[in-house]
Amino acid sequence: MAEEIVFKKFTEWLAEDIPFWDLTSELIPPHVSCEAVVMAKEDGVSACCEDIAPILEKMGFEVKILKKKGEEFKAGEHIMQIKGNMRKLLGIERLLLNILSQAFGIATLTKKFIEKARKINPNVKIAATRKVKPGFQLFEKRAIAAVGGDTHRLNLSDMILIKENHLKYFGSVKEAVRKAKEATSFSRKIEVEVSSAEEAVEAAEAGADIIMLDNCTLDKVRKAIETLEQKGLRSKVLVEVSGGIKLENLEDYVKTGVDIISSGELTHSAKIIDISLEVTEVKK
Amino acid sequence: MAEEIVFKKFTEWLAEDIPFWDLTSELIPPHVSCEAVVMAKEDGVSACCEDIAPILEKMGFEVKILKKKGEEFKAGEHIMQIKGNMRKLLGIERLLLNILSQAFGIATLTKKFIEKARKINPNVKIAATRKVKPGFQLFEKRAIAAVGGDTHRLNLSDMILIKENHLKYFGSVKEAVRKAKEATSFSRKIEVEVSSAEEAVEAAEAGADIIMLDNCTLDKVRKAIETLEQKGLRSKVLVEVSGGIKLENLEDYVKTGVDIISSGELTHSAKIIDISLEVTEVKK
Amino acid sequence: MAEEIVFKKFTEWLAEDIPFWDLTSELIPPHVSCEAVVMAKEDGVSACCEDIAPILEKMGFEVKILKKKGEEFKAGEHIMQIKGNMRKLLGIERLLLNILSQAFGIATLTKKFIEKARKINPNVKIAATRKVKPGFQLFEKRAIAAVGGDTHRLNLSDMILIKENHLKYFGSVKEAVRKAKEATSFSRKIEVEVSSAEEAVEAAEAGADIIMLDNCTLDKVRKAIETLEQKGLRSKVLVEVSGGIKLENLEDYVKTGVDIISSGELTHSAKIIDISLEVTEVKK
Amino acid sequence: MAEEIVFKKFTEWLAEDIPFWDLTSELIPPHVSCEAVVMAKEDGVSACCEDIAPILEKMGFEVKILKKKGEEFKAGEHIMQIKGNMRKLLGIERLLLNILSQAFGIATLTKKFIEKARKINPNVKIAATRKVKPGFQLFEKRAIAAVGGDTHRLNLSDMILIKENHLKYFGSVKEAVRKAKEATSFSRKIEVEVSSAEEAVEAAEAGADIIMLDNCTLDKVRKAIETLEQKGLRSKVLVEVSGGIKLENLEDYVKTGVDIISSGELTHSAKIIDISLEVTEVKK
Amino acid sequence: MAEEIVFKKFTEWLAEDIPFWDLTSELIPPHVSCEAVVMAKEDGVSACCEDIAPILEKMGFEVKILKKKGEEFKAGEHIMQIKGNMRKLLGIERLLLNILSQAFGIATLTKKFIEKARKINPNVKIAATRKVKPGFQLFEKRAIAAVGGDTHRLNLSDMILIKENHLKYFGSVKEAVRKAKEATSFSRKIEVEVSSAEEAVEAAEAGADIIMLDNCTLDKVRKAIETLEQKGLRSKVLVEVSGGIKLENLEDYVKTGVDIISSGELTHSAKIIDISLEVTEVKK
Amino acid sequence: MAEEIVFKKFTEWLAEDIPFWDLTSELIPPHVSCEAVVMAKEDGVSACCEDIAPILEKMGFEVKILKKKGEEFKAGEHIMQIKGNMRKLLGIERLLLNILSQAFGIATLTKKFIEKARKINPNVKIAATRKVKPGFQLFEKRAIAAVGGDTHRLNLSDMILIKENHLKYFGSVKEAVRKAKEATSFSRKIEVEVSSAEEAVEAAEAGADIIMLDNCTLDKVRKAIETLEQKGLRSKVLVEVSGGIKLENLEDYVKTGVDIISSGELTHSAKIIDISLEVTEVKK
Repeated sequence: MAEEIVFKKFTEWLAEDIPFWDLTSELIPPHVSCEAVVMAKEDGVSACCEDIAPILEKMGFEVKILKKKGEEFKAGEHIMQIKGNMRKLLGIERLLLNILSQAFGIATLTKKFIEKARKINPNVKIAATRKVKPGFQLFEKRAIAAVGGDTHRLNLSDMILIKENHLKYFGSVKEAVRKAKEATSFSRKIEVEVSSAEEAVEAAEAGADIIMLDNCTLDKVRKAIETLEQKGLRSKVLVEVSGGIKLENLEDYVKTGVDIISSGELTHSAKIIDISLEVTEVKK
Repeated sequence: MAEEIVFKKFTEWLAEDIPFWDLTSELIPPHVSCEAVVMAKEDGVSACCEDIAPILEKMGFEVKILKKKGEEFKAGEHIMQIKGNMRKLLGIERLLLNILSQAFGIATLTKKFIEKARKINPNVKIAATRKVKPGFQLFEKRAIAAVGGDTHRLNLSDMILIKENHLKYFGSVKEAVRKAKEATSFSRKIEVEVSSAEEAVEAAEAGADIIMLDNCTLDKVRKAIETLEQKGLRSKVLVEVSGGIKLENLEDYVKTGVDIISSGELTHSAKIIDISLEVTEVKK
Repeated sequence: MAEEIVFKKFTEWLAEDIPFWDLTSELIPPHVSCEAVVMAKEDGVSACCEDIAPILEKMGFEVKILKKKGEEFKAGEHIMQIKGNMRKLLGIERLLLNILSQAFGIATLTKKFIEKARKINPNVKIAATRKVKPGFQLFEKRAIAAVGGDTHRLNLSDMILIKENHLKYFGSVKEAVRKAKEATSFSRKIEVEVSSAEEAVEAAEAGADIIMLDNCTLDKVRKAIETLEQKGLRSKVLVEVSGGIKLENLEDYVKTGVDIISSGELTHSAKIIDISLEVTEVKK
Repeated sequence: MAEEIVFKKFTEWLAEDIPFWDLTSELIPPHVSCEAVVMAKEDGVSACCEDIAPILEKMGFEVKILKKKGEEFKAGEHIMQIKGNMRKLLGIERLLLNILSQAFGIATLTKKFIEKARKINPNVKIAATRKVKPGFQLFEKRAIAAVGGDTHRLNLSDMILIKENHLKYFGSVKEAVRKAKEATSFSRKIEVEVSSAEEAVEAAEAGADIIMLDNCTLDKVRKAIETLEQKGLRSKVLVEVSGGIKLENLEDYVKTGVDIISSGELTHSAKIIDISLEVTEVKK
Repeated sequence: MAEEIVFKKFTEWLAEDIPFWDLTSELIPPHVSCEAVVMAKEDGVSACCEDIAPILEKMGFEVKILKKKGEEFKAGEHIMQIKGNMRKLLGIERLLLNILSQAFGIATLTKKFIEKARKINPNVKIAATRKVKPGFQLFEKRAIAAVGGDTHRLNLSDMILIKENHLKYFGSVKEAVRKAKEATSFSRKIEVEVSSAEEAVEAAEAGADIIMLDNCTLDKVRKAIETLEQKGLRSKVLVEVSGGIKLENLEDYVKTGVDIISSGELTHSAKIIDISLEVTEVKK
Repeated sequence: MAEEIVFKKFTEWLAEDIPFWDLTSELIPPHVSCEAVVMAKEDGVSACCEDIAPILEKMGFEVKILKKKGEEFKAGEHIMQIKGNMRKLLGIERLLLNILSQAFGIATLTKKFIEKARKINPNVKIAATRKVKPGFQLFEKRAIAAVGGDTHRLNLSDMILIKENHLKYFGSVKEAVRKAKEATSFSRKIEVEVSSAEEAVEAAEAGADIIMLDNCTLDKVRKAIETLEQKGLRSKVLVEVSGGIKLENLEDYVKTGVDIISSGELTHSAKIIDISLEVTEVKK
């Protein structure tokens, strides 16, 4: 990410948190500096420190990343060292921790998904969805990518994804895909949500690049894949399943032979990883 | 919340989601309109619909709120009705659902906390923390308030809260509170984190308004309250406990007789409530 | 495009043009209204009126579009009618004309490209590039699409396009494509710039979705396509040519059998279409 | 230009081009640096490098300007050298080139106008108009000034310019100028569009500072100047001609003896100067 | 002023005043509406109500202006009536009053200056300076203009004003004016600060449009004007005095025969006019 | 204050003052640097230099603060030294002086209030109000704090303050306070405006933290305090007086024994302190 853009976002968030000034931290005189660490209070996986460090440096801090993106850490371990103005550091402490604890949470859960899935199919992709926190997706998608997850669509302008509500207008998968192919740049892929083997075939024949089996039972997923194979269409499309997939039932879905498993869980329900900022030395 | 301010935030989030245009929804002709409902896919509690409805109205939609803030809903029930331009509605669908599903999740969990706690002590306050999603706290704090939760600090400029890292500079609770009282407006309350009965007494004697027992065992909490009572200081301060409090151990903490229980769980780990937008009628 | 987003951009541009107030138009009393037309002063093709009209309506004007997107107009014809406050209309006159005259210019040139190219190959795509005016690409890409042109990449986050400068790091097309496939979401296409038939084969074999022959002679283009066919790779990739393609030499490139022809000319060198705002009636 | 302001604009444009991250350039590891040059692919005139260099420096690049503002360059020559992070440089490459190629295009065309005009009248001013690209006028006006062109009005708050549409309200040039003089600060000049010798006299007598002969034939222009001279008014006003003036007919207009020749061509139809960024060395 | 621009500023100021929500006004239920008046608590002159009313209307209020710009009001009189949502109105009350009380203050003082000065010389201009409140000059300059004051420069891009600090570089008035005339658009006026009759002559001879006698004694001013007359230069320039001019000594300066009197007092030291918002009826 | 936030505000203000470029200062070549001082032209008290200095440093200037916040200076004394690019310094000169002269004005007046009041009661608090300049309150509240004044409420989200207009809805002080206590976070204080001794008692009994006697005569204030004492409520509440308090009548109000005296005068009517920027050396 361009650090200028991240800096702008960080500063806007900071302004929301410090509309006037940090009443408490300004009790500390301006010349006091300190050393601190971002410490894990539970096990997890690192992400986004590389995106945040340049921002901290721009603000005058000295930063050392101890756990690189994708790297695991244990409770008690140090993830990042920060040196600099104490008043200023305590003013950004919570914002910093809020960003990282969310990013670590997403990275940790995504890594679990990937490891579990790849034991069965090393090529399956674990993908996020657009079920993100408004304004924060930049970091959420970044955390997904940090551990080898697939970001999926980043926004509504980068891919065609025809969903059930769109189909209510078009009436049929075939018509929707036809219209999409006609109207859309060659630079975009076209994906369509289907809910049966028949629709999957219809989509593949109409030229969709990706077929999403949304909220389908395992049986339906198997049936769809089988039918695509029988019709010689399997290699022409990517097959994605989505809807209600969690760590518990993940393996069953991988075994169906789909190419991509996407789950809103990765972002909207990843528990944060508990971390804290510990000041280790105060220099008055 | 001033709707002009919410509108600005909503529009900025929308611009992040639609940097150019919604490639898929623009496949639908501009004159098509539709009716739709926000439908619950699991049980939960409503929040923030009242804040979002004026935004949708400004965008030209007709909106009817079926579940008011604080009201419970069951899976399958309709929460909000929306009529208007179909292309436009599908373009904001995910953003709308992302906001509401998070707000509902927070409201649902907070309500559980409150109900459980108030059975034991009807006056205890269940409060949020500043462990929020960057840029989204406006809605998170609003969802907390919607069900009678306590927002606690909204930002770093509205209250003094002396935490452990600040104390590392001051050396003692007494000195920190003294400095805070001297430097702070009469319009602000002063809270300080303590970790023992002794420090609690020190804080109360120094004139803190609120004492936060952070990450303390139940025993320590009881001891602190007891000591404050013995010294005749209990009525002069509010006592807050925080750190690791979940639904499971909530009752034990309420029984200690504290005034306020705050928990980061309410915001950072509330599972979203699954909802969807269902188009119920298309008018070509 | 979401009209809220266009409104924000329009307002920011207006603020740059009216930092205080429009000294001249405020000489006219506030209650005066008028009727006006956007009139063509030369032949051209309409575009973006549908995006601008809702903005004008939000500002209180009554608007009627007389020439829809993609429609041709002759010098002297009226393209849009606008009724409303005179002072206000004259204050936005130049900004409005600047947007539309650029959009019309791009639409007009793009339509010429498309018509000429499709006489030879009705399936060939005429595509824009990222050679746009900073901050204005929203309208430029929109004008391209208005006449059936292909927008190509909208920004750097929506597709992989490995260019010559990137290849200087990777050393080979093969290595670059391999790395891209490994790192990129399934939702994205991968395109790579090549400069010879050999590299084209290398790219196709490595799994690129699109091959761009950049600044190649007609001979080289023919050679590349022929070689891809011989190797049985032609149907696996889209072939794009770019670099120095203008109306004059367009047909020769179409004849080579490429899938896509992209040209920076469409945006960076489209002559504007001369239009004016004529007040037709003043109501004092 | 205040570099802080240009930096803000540049960052906003960059954010539009990199809403998430530059998918392609991030394939290159973060530690790789490079050296590059901005190279001319056709002859032209430099402009705005002095405004952009501080921005690049703020972003961590080392920059050397080889062709100063107003200086001519030949195809193949280097205009600017840039050293720094490769990933980052490729991320801003297109934005940088889009800005400079437009600026160079405007500077090049303006210089041709000036040189041609000054052979006949060394004091005549060649001026731009407000026919700019929305949001980009900062650089367009700067490029005009870089080669000695006249920026003319920068926005609607810095000068009175009564145009034909305004006159439709006032009824007469005289009345419009009278009203303007009464309402306007002494710090502003007053210009009025006229279309005949009679109106020119009316404007001068009413106290206009500048008279614009808009879309007038050469005969009309000569007539107007002659009449102003006969009435002893020529020295009291500046005379500007505008409308349809191009390089081809420029000399004829200069010969009429006007003070200022303004042309929308300079901005809205200046062909860009083709330039590229060539990475000359990669440091892994 | 374009109401879209004022609305943006108003909304940003409101967001600073209501970062979350108006804790007090939200105690009132959302359906309650009210009628209110902006009431004068001391005598003054109205200004800027016409700029604010459309903003209030956009926010859903019904507004009636009772005292138009430039009109005088007495203590106790009503200036504006507002009907609408009570919660919302109390949320903007202070912001609204802060804007208007400053605008009225400036208008009131400026009118006093003008009336006093015009008794002696009906053509003298009373002008503001750039000594404004950061971010608020839009309204300050507007209030000046509302009563017939002269706004003077609005910003640093709309006029040349060579001040003492600039002269320290150029060494002489003559050299500075020469350089300015060479570098500046014909559309701008050139003013220069001088401190003696000799410099005034130097400036006029060099071609300055306006001469500012800054911080000069009455004698010096008289001397300068006399010398300009003797040299036949008086009619070629406007003469402005500035520095330390207050209501008390205003007449003396007018009598010197200068064209313009500018004073920072008008903006930086105008006492606000005390006004209040009185709710006259509550509709539950 | 977080310097990133102040920098953003400063840059936005600068952009309003330099929409294109500083026409006058750019007459000076870019390489010229200078030394300058901010000099007092009248006696006053320093404030906010510490907030501005980091901004100037970020812009490349070398800065030395000679008069720290709260320190008094005499006419002729130097307050700050600045070295750096001359063109750039003159471009920000007026903005810098506008900020500081306002801040100094507020600090100077506030200090006078405090000194006068503390001679009588060393514990009385002198507080500001929300009668600020829109967008500028950050600096106004900072200047208040710089000399030991009390900022009072910073915005509408940080405290409950029930005013007369709110009471028109609630009907009684008691009901309003009751509702506020029920709806408001424990982290907030509750203040209520009253206009008689009876209401003061009602407020104290209902549990208000602070009672504001608004626009009361001295007699009424004395009466209210006396009654509170008689009822044993005086120690439970803070008592604030507000409305029409000026330096002249300040002592009388202090003598009544109130805790807090707040006055809009401190911000809305503080005369600026006249300062100038004097370039002391030019380095060509």
